[in-house]
Amino acid sequence: MKHIFAKLMLIGTGILASPTLAFAAEESAHTGSHGEFAIIFFWIALLLLAAKIGSVVERFGQPAVLGELLVGVLLGNLTLVGISYFEAVSTNTIISFMSELGVVILLFQIGLESNIAEITRVGTKSLLVAVVGVVMPFVLGTYLVGPIMLPGLNPNAYLFLGAALTATSVGITARVFKDLGALKSRESKIVLGAAVIDDVLGLIILAIVTAIVTVGSVSIFDVGIIVGKSVGFLIGSIAFGLMFAPKIGKWMAKIQTSVGMKFTLAISFGLVFAYLAQLIGLAPIIGAFAAGLVLDPIYFRHFKTSEIVHEIKEIMGELQELKSKNRERIFGALQHHELRHVEEIIEAISYFLVPLFFVHTGMQVDLTTLANPEVVFIALIVTAVAFIGKISAGAVAGNNVNKWLIGFGMVPRGEVGLIFASIGAGLGVITDDLFSVIIIMVILTTLTTPPLLSHLLKK
Amino acid sequence: MKHIFAKLMLIGTGILASPTLAFAAEESAHTGSHGEFAIIFFWIALLLLAAKIGSVVERFGQPAVLGELLVGVLLGNLTLVGISYFEAVSTNTIISFMSELGVVILLFQIGLESNIAEITRVGTKSLLVAVVGVVMPFVLGTYLVGPIMLPGLNPNAYLFLGAALTATSVGITARVFKDLGALKSRESKIVLGAAVIDDVLGLIILAIVTAIVTVGSVSIFDVGIIVGKSVGFLIGSIAFGLMFAPKIGKWMAKIQTSVGMKFTLAISFGLVFAYLAQLIGLAPIIGAFAAGLVLDPIYFRHFKTSEIVHEIKEIMGELQELKSKNRERIFGALQHHELRHVEEIIEAISYFLVPLFFVHTGMQVDLTTLANPEVVFIALIVTAVAFIGKISAGAVAGNNVNKWLIGFGMVPRGEVGLIFASIGAGLGVITDDLFSVIIIMVILTTLTTPPLLSHLLKK
Repeated sequence: MKHIFAKLMLIGTGILASPTLAFAAEESAHTGSHGEFAIIFFWIALLLLAAKIGSVVERFGQPAVLGELLVGVLLGNLTLVGISYFEAVSTNTIISFMSELGVVILLFQIGLESNIAEITRVGTKSLLVAVVGVVMPFVLGTYLVGPIMLPGLNPNAYLFLGAALTATSVGITARVFKDLGALKSRESKIVLGAAVIDDVLGLIILAIVTAIVTVGSVSIFDVGIIVGKSVGFLIGSIAFGLMFAPKIGKWMAKIQTSVGMKFTLAISFGLVFAYLAQLIGLAPIIGAFAAGLVLDPIYFRHFKTSEIVHEIKEIMGELQELKSKNRERIFGALQHHELRHVEEIIEAISYFLVPLFFVHTGMQVDLTTLANPEVVFIALIVTAVAFIGKISAGAVAGNNVNKWLIGFGMVPRGEVGLIFASIGAGLGVITDDLFSVIIIMVILTTLTTPPLLSHLLKK
Repeated sequence: MKHIFAKLMLIGTGILASPTLAFAAEESAHTGSHGEFAIIFFWIALLLLAAKIGSVVERFGQPAVLGELLVGVLLGNLTLVGISYFEAVSTNTIISFMSELGVVILLFQIGLESNIAEITRVGTKSLLVAVVGVVMPFVLGTYLVGPIMLPGLNPNAYLFLGAALTATSVGITARVFKDLGALKSRESKIVLGAAVIDDVLGLIILAIVTAIVTVGSVSIFDVGIIVGKSVGFLIGSIAFGLMFAPKIGKWMAKIQTSVGMKFTLAISFGLVFAYLAQLIGLAPIIGAFAAGLVLDPIYFRHFKTSEIVHEIKEIMGELQELKSKNRERIFGALQHHELRHVEEIIEAISYFLVPLFFVHTGMQVDLTTLANPEVVFIALIVTAVAFIGKISAGAVAGNNVNKWLIGFGMVPRGEVGLIFASIGAGLGVITDDLFSVIIIMVILTTLTTPPLLSHLLKK
């Protein structure tokens, strides 16, 4: 009779898994909470604290995201020294979801801080950078480095290597620009725009390459449909934003929506766009970014030009008489208070969720791939191609911008490269060695970009 | 060759589920994201928008939480009119997790807004209210209403009915007090304190009743262990708060932690306590509430008495000379700006997660239980007992407080009652009818409390 409590738990678990019980679903949900969910609360706390420990790299002038990635790599590879605790964390579905939600929120937030007009102003440059940044690595990977470094493979394997070298992982670059306060720079706009176009191009390439491998050929008609859907989504989002944003802004000001209501509308908009993007085959983060772009004017343009600003000016006039040393401070506080808006709430949520994504991404890195010297050597060459392909994209970005910054900004491949590699492996075209090569390329492009960009931005 | 894209998706899914692939876990996580996760983004948006639609009840003077619950009931029962879309939502594990995280954040937030000193000041009253509020419904349910209304059942069935009538679901009451700005009232403190003690008492009763049913008897020693762990956790948390809070506060002020760091420490603390509570068998929300209580002084006491307040006072002195109609407004804005703190970030997160909990809770209500008139009649009697038991608890709350407010504040049984009922059903002691009776009692106590409290608070 000693272990009543343990028994109780067993009984509870047994019962609640029973499908014969009415309300079974709800109870298992509720009791799952008391058993399974609580450990996930603990893991989230662990990952957040780990992220903050990683962010000490800021004291050495590095962006916080690098620290978060490195801490993730450390935790994810503790199995090498016999600690397997974090395996359960990194493979947990709920943690993966929270991490994915984090990067969706990040891109939505970055979309909010960006502005359609500014992005379209650099649109041609972004398009050029994106196209060169996709064509160059694809051609170099498929027709040069692949056949030379890994001779004798199925030609389709080189196609997949080329494809895996194309798509930029916008999350990391965006986060670096954000960490270093450079989101407003022209370079940042061009890179963000190009990364979005990149994702569309990468998707098209993946679809075509996969069709070639599985069916043997691909029709122009099929390609047309894929291209049409993807481009339609982006153009559609932007057109929607330009047409309806001002009207919705006026309407919201008229019905005097609360901050809570505005926030709910905003975040729901972002999440729905993330879903729509996925429906047509784009990454959810692209949808979230587009939603943020669209919302930018809706939520803030109106308030910034409203009577509130007029009133603040009036008050500031009064303060002029004060000749107070505190005048600036009062003004700042007042403005902050009155304009307290949706962006601030989204920022708060991103404090909570975004570090989970970067630590989690770091945890996916498997350092054992570095054990085979030959593979590492080939991987270094492939990584060099990954750099060269994107730096040459930066070179066509035109004048008055830092071309190196744009080129290096396009370098990280992140999880997009991993997805390409895994689909290729699943089709049986990519060998184990080539798989490892792609993984190492992803690791190197992801981890070296933050310090490189940081260095360039500070110059 | 037409449906390349569909094929691609199939291929992707098939591959990524393959366990033979190195990195299988990480890719399934990532690609799960692109398939399975995106629909959950959409569902979250739906639930948030539904919650906001439900909150129109505020225009009729009702707390928003009532609207969120009702919208949830509506969505969860659309199957009755042939729409089964929301079944997948209400049974989804990730949605359940987000909802559970929401109520943990809510209780943490309420803990932050409460204060150990204030809670312990009403400690004796809370204890009295809690004990009466547990003993009365238990005795009435087990020895009076059970045998009279449902004669001939196994005596253990009455024990479970009595147990299901004991534990207060603090989430709903806390939210009503919060919605109506009454968290600082003495009544609110007494109810929150009593609800926490209730959970501990309910746990003890559940353990004892389950032991009696399964083993036939229970030793004082076993009871002692359960009681010791639970009480130890609460006393320990409070002692920890009183002893270390001021020191940690001073230390944090000295190292000049950023808002982000402070937030991370705070939320991690809350999540770890939620986990610890679950480890010793308490509900995670109790741990989160205790953590919030403990943190209250750490994060805010120091700042409130700091030089910032002194400076604000100095500035306010200057403003006296202004004789401006805007003086109050400037002062408010300034104070808000300077004291921008962790509470605000937590509040932002709660905008996002808390409505999910209440809509999700509403969705668990199955209106078909209302179809049998006899069961409904018995349920109404049991519900009356549920009210009487807690109102008599309010009656012993002493003078200078609104006893009705305390009594009704203790009424909602929420998910705690459901857990009791399901464990009883799983043990085979509770009949289908008795199960339905408990479900209806939970529905009625949960849905009638918000308008009743709202009415009492406005008087």
